Amino acid sequence: MPVETIRWRDGALSIIDQTLLPAECTRIDLDTLEAVWEAIRSLRVRGAPAIGVCAAFGVLVALNERRAAGFSEVRESLDHAARRLSGARPTAVNLFWALDRMKRKAETLAPTLPFDAAFAHLEAEALAILDEDRAVCRAIGEHGANLIADDSGVLTHCNAGALATSDYGTALATVYVAAERGKRFRVYAGETRPLLQGARLTAWELAEAEIPVTVICDNMAALIMKERRVHVAIVGADCIAANGDVANKIGTYGLAVLAKAHALPFYVAAPSSTFDLRHKTGETIPIEQRSGDEVRRSFGRLTAPLGVDIYNPAFDVTPAEFITGIITEHGILFPPYGDSIARTIRHEPSGS
Amino acid sequence: MPVETIRWRDGALSIIDQTLLPAECTRIDLDTLEAVWEAIRSLRVRGAPAIGVCAAFGVLVALNERRAAGFSEVRESLDHAARRLSGARPTAVNLFWALDRMKRKAETLAPTLPFDAAFAHLEAEALAILDEDRAVCRAIGEHGANLIADDSGVLTHCNAGALATSDYGTALATVYVAAERGKRFRVYAGETRPLLQGARLTAWELAEAEIPVTVICDNMAALIMKERRVHVAIVGADCIAANGDVANKIGTYGLAVLAKAHALPFYVAAPSSTFDLRHKTGETIPIEQRSGDEVRRSFGRLTAPLGVDIYNPAFDVTPAEFITGIITEHGILFPPYGDSIARTIRHEPSGS
Repeated sequence: MPVETIRWRDGALSIIDQTLLPAECTRIDLDTLEAVWEAIRSLRVRGAPAIGVCAAFGVLVALNERRAAGFSEVRESLDHAARRLSGARPTAVNLFWALDRMKRKAETLAPTLPFDAAFAHLEAEALAILDEDRAVCRAIGEHGANLIADDSGVLTHCNAGALATSDYGTALATVYVAAERGKRFRVYAGETRPLLQGARLTAWELAEAEIPVTVICDNMAALIMKERRVHVAIVGADCIAANGDVANKIGTYGLAVLAKAHALPFYVAAPSSTFDLRHKTGETIPIEQRSGDEVRRSFGRLTAPLGVDIYNPAFDVTPAEFITGIITEHGILFPPYGDSIARTIRHEPSGS
Repeated sequence: MPVETIRWRDGALSIIDQTLLPAECTRIDLDTLEAVWEAIRSLRVRGAPAIGVCAAFGVLVALNERRAAGFSEVRESLDHAARRLSGARPTAVNLFWALDRMKRKAETLAPTLPFDAAFAHLEAEALAILDEDRAVCRAIGEHGANLIADDSGVLTHCNAGALATSDYGTALATVYVAAERGKRFRVYAGETRPLLQGARLTAWELAEAEIPVTVICDNMAALIMKERRVHVAIVGADCIAANGDVANKIGTYGLAVLAKAHALPFYVAAPSSTFDLRHKTGETIPIEQRSGDEVRRSFGRLTAPLGVDIYNPAFDVTPAEFITGIITEHGILFPPYGDSIARTIRHEPSGS
């Protein structure tokens, strides 16, 4: 069983605080809307699918909190929570998608429904989002596992694993299923500056699962491609446009360009909830800019001079032309993506 | 005046301890052979030209130390010091080149020469290496400054600046001279994991010189190329083969591949002492592998799990086909490098 990244028990939400990994694995309670917002904002919980699931339960936390404060109007409380949470991270489309689902569910409820009954319906919706995420992870893993050959190397970036979802992850689901099928291979985890999700999280969860993993600095990826240590690259996604352009953790675009130059297949793994068809191309996907202190004060030490400019985009956009295939729960999509995405991705666009 | 990275005064050697930058700029004395070896090994002094200069003075430190211990044979003491120091870093050819120069100088001295007189000759040789390094830096800067256009961006990697040499640096000499000529531009310094020489050292020395600099994580280089924030890349070198293949700090190869994909000119700046014509191609240049703890225990924190494999090569080799030109003190060499290098680089190969 993968690690339980997000837990909902008896009306209480808790998460593994991923900022403390790998030094310690600590579970923290999120019992206020602000605590949920802060956990998403500070990347205590991260990964597009996990952010969506956490936000859905975060709405329930907010409803409980508002009820305790005397608010009785469920729909208004939900709108309040959704507005707040949707501002926590701008790029991960699953966040808006999950909050939209909760809002749409609320719209189906009779305004006269008592609070407890309305809450139960909304809790069922959040649990459905969680269960669907689990099923989606498994399906992605089943479709993608065939891409991993015996005695091969798999390059990944950031963390698109169990810690980024409710189950096996997206990119790493392919790895977990390949391992279940008895394949022997090694994962190369790019450490993923500035916050080191690859070194801290991917390496940790794969080591826990006893899957061979080697950590590299991001600037070593080209060398291990040249040395033929890796045979396929598989990464996650935070938002995918209608033409197959992919927003994902900063560094993904560079890896994709390097993979093409080395004739290395480059796959993206993502649930259909990661597609936002309102974006015709990746050009319009908003890219979160984060504080320069994430780069300047690495791990408590001053690693760049005070007063020097720092550029710290959290994501980049990889044009579809660099992507060999997109692994979804419905199967692997291939170019031309305009067609394959239109045929396969049927969910309502976010915000509609 | 650039910072005085290596200082020789009244027979005493001191350096700026670069492992403490940018938090503090502290000068330390190196008064034993072991202290010199440790300073080179631990990257307190680093950068191929600076290592060469430091090793030349390190030989003098060792001679003084051996004399104090009762040894009277200068050449034997020098051979002892050279053997020890040449093992400190395996890739930087300037280290071997400087030690060879000191040995060859010793071979010209009459065996009957008193210790003090022999020492004076060897001190003069070390000072000549220092002075020549200064002149070479200036010449590289003069040749390379034309590559930097007004209102442009310059990408560099690691630190090939004042802290890596006795003067203006190699790659950064072009930047210093361009600034002296009144050009306006911005340097983008890749932070250069794992030891962050770009963020800690390049950003520090450029900020001291009031040259605009922006620090990026290594995995952001492709994005700033795509965004056309940079118009030329200029890096240093630790060893250049006869065919123009360049060994330099890990990550250089990836930058060169990305530059080619973005039609960005990619230059290497290096003194002729960095060429080692015994290497027909880069394939035979030894690549230093360093401890995984440089990646795992970043800045005192555990940033990758204990027990997980880490790959930590300190350098990579960039094939000549990715290099637009090599800026030397004799001018800029262009392809085909086999010809331009053979015509220009006339120093004795190391170890001959």
